[in-house]
Amino acid sequence: MQAVAIPPPAVQLEILERGVVDLNVREELVTRLARSHEQQAPLTIKAGFDPTAADIHLGHTVLMEKMRQFQASGHRVVFIVGDYTALIGDPTGRNTLRPPLTPEQIAVNAQTYREQAVKILDPERTEFVNNSLWLSKLSFREIIELASKYNLGRMLERRDFKERFESGRQIALHEFLYPLMQGHDSVALNADVELGGADQIFNLNVGRHLMAAGNLRPQVCMTVPLLVGLDGVEKMSKSKGNHVGISEPPPDMFGKIMSVSDETMAGWYPLLLGRDADAARPLDEKKGLARELVARFHGAVAADATLAWWNAGRPAQDVPEFEVAAGQLPAIMVAVGLAKSNSDARRKITQGGVSLDDAPVSSPVLELSAGSYLLRVGKKSLARLQVKT
Amino acid sequence: MQAVAIPPPAVQLEILERGVVDLNVREELVTRLARSHEQQAPLTIKAGFDPTAADIHLGHTVLMEKMRQFQASGHRVVFIVGDYTALIGDPTGRNTLRPPLTPEQIAVNAQTYREQAVKILDPERTEFVNNSLWLSKLSFREIIELASKYNLGRMLERRDFKERFESGRQIALHEFLYPLMQGHDSVALNADVELGGADQIFNLNVGRHLMAAGNLRPQVCMTVPLLVGLDGVEKMSKSKGNHVGISEPPPDMFGKIMSVSDETMAGWYPLLLGRDADAARPLDEKKGLARELVARFHGAVAADATLAWWNAGRPAQDVPEFEVAAGQLPAIMVAVGLAKSNSDARRKITQGGVSLDDAPVSSPVLELSAGSYLLRVGKKSLARLQVKT
Repeated sequence: MQAVAIPPPAVQLEILERGVVDLNVREELVTRLARSHEQQAPLTIKAGFDPTAADIHLGHTVLMEKMRQFQASGHRVVFIVGDYTALIGDPTGRNTLRPPLTPEQIAVNAQTYREQAVKILDPERTEFVNNSLWLSKLSFREIIELASKYNLGRMLERRDFKERFESGRQIALHEFLYPLMQGHDSVALNADVELGGADQIFNLNVGRHLMAAGNLRPQVCMTVPLLVGLDGVEKMSKSKGNHVGISEPPPDMFGKIMSVSDETMAGWYPLLLGRDADAARPLDEKKGLARELVARFHGAVAADATLAWWNAGRPAQDVPEFEVAAGQLPAIMVAVGLAKSNSDARRKITQGGVSLDDAPVSSPVLELSAGSYLLRVGKKSLARLQVKT
Repeated sequence: MQAVAIPPPAVQLEILERGVVDLNVREELVTRLARSHEQQAPLTIKAGFDPTAADIHLGHTVLMEKMRQFQASGHRVVFIVGDYTALIGDPTGRNTLRPPLTPEQIAVNAQTYREQAVKILDPERTEFVNNSLWLSKLSFREIIELASKYNLGRMLERRDFKERFESGRQIALHEFLYPLMQGHDSVALNADVELGGADQIFNLNVGRHLMAAGNLRPQVCMTVPLLVGLDGVEKMSKSKGNHVGISEPPPDMFGKIMSVSDETMAGWYPLLLGRDADAARPLDEKKGLARELVARFHGAVAADATLAWWNAGRPAQDVPEFEVAAGQLPAIMVAVGLAKSNSDARRKITQGGVSLDDAPVSSPVLELSAGSYLLRVGKKSLARLQVKT
């Protein structure tokens, strides 16, 4: 990893404060940035992600862009994969219990997460850490000590707990352990700053509280806005089906973005592109957003091709054509946007959902030599491959 | 351990139901006793004790007498030493947090507890088990699973939690873990019956619930009345200073019992002696109770001597005289009632609180040969020893 010079605090703040919702406490951040600049010692920036869904979507990228900004200023960014917390499932913002995932599901999701995250984050400057690393090692006694540092009254200040409690709905006791686990992650890392979505401010402040209770310098809590989903109403979330995954094939991504209201588009602009849309020409701006996001995740060539396809009236049953180099099928599937990752591609093959020229593929290490192939993934996704040596 | 024939259920119930407060569920107990009799297979009876204080007092003996009755019917009695739960301290009936004990304090108290318990229980038929045996081995994941089986609403049905919550006082989150730990003890033991004081019915029912949630046959919960303390008002408890310890020297025990009101005495009779007092002659009955309890814990000889001493007007500065066999000082201290146990005696010696003929004793293995000695323990306890070979 190449060291990046840490700029003066004012230069950093100019970028880091942009678009932030909560900053608790700003003065502390200024002090730490100043010291970090003087000593050229990176701060530890923490953000946690629950591998309860396999896909990173545009909603996540708002937070990841903030992480990237810290990386660009020379800081150490730790991407916490909440594999242990996912055993509970964060109840934040939910009024019902989530069914817990199995360790196997969590491991698969975590791997896909990592592969997708590096499309935004600097792979050289991102540490991926599973929080099972420390949480699985806590004894009952240590958990008792952890739980003794927080009380019911404070816990019920969290909006979703409060609402459920007041309306007489169940709160299972293990749900209270979630914020404590997330907070303990900050203690384990001795984080300088924790980043999260605006709905995470309560949990972030629990980490702050636990660090102080453990005689550590409490972390600064910084949140970014939540991106609304395609429906323009609810927070973008895979479970609500209102999301745009960053690994979705270009036509799907483009089409989904074109489907949102002008108002939603206007709200997305500053969060995704860092600038405002021109309200006078919404259609152009929407296409511009769609093109720019496809370019970000699939490259400029795919973006231009998708824009052209869209402008041509999205010719029905159109099979997109790709020139690719000979090689293993999984890598090719990723290259043409029909798998999120090599492991995803291998899984799809193993599950029998992939065919070449209508013959099912069974080997996940199949080599494609030069030629033309019709690739089918699942029931609907098609691609014409022109394989070159 | 000699097998005891398990009598028919009706014979057992006649004794076991006597003086019981809660019996949840009676029909289940009848069924289990019947099956146990048919197969001559003992039931597993569980009772937990918190080693947060070193001394067993008369209040504990009400419960221990019920345990002894189960032993006399041939059942297996497990005396759970709550060494792990004592890390929290049961908040039941308290409106404030207990300071947690250190593991060292807990170990010392647990040892003293065992030594005293066998004054009531059959040492051959009592299993002493520390609940750290299983609780210390639970992983965070298992604790999450445990906590997921209970919810906040039910927890707040417990009176002391409810009162504290409604009056806005703190409930630290680890306090909710206490009933779950106690309940998990029942799961770990696969208990048939859990015994406890009447204020424990909530915690006992948590065990019942957790067993059912874990697909075990849920335990029967049986509680005995709480003994009021010397003040006649509050539950007997060492921390309230209204207790009579079963290892207190005969004159102290006798004097404390004589100090209670006639009403308190009348309440103690059925709980401690299993019969009613004769209200027409309260003074005689009170002396009878005092004598009988001194006899129970110190023997008939000491009881008669103490009664005579009392009737003689408790001659001031009287130094009781004891004939004892030559041997180690700690054993002699126990024999004359100036230490609760050998380990207690050794501790008192090591702490410098013991003297012989006004010379401090420093060795906890000091042998006393034949002769006459004035033994002093602490500032007030004196005994004249006539040591014979």
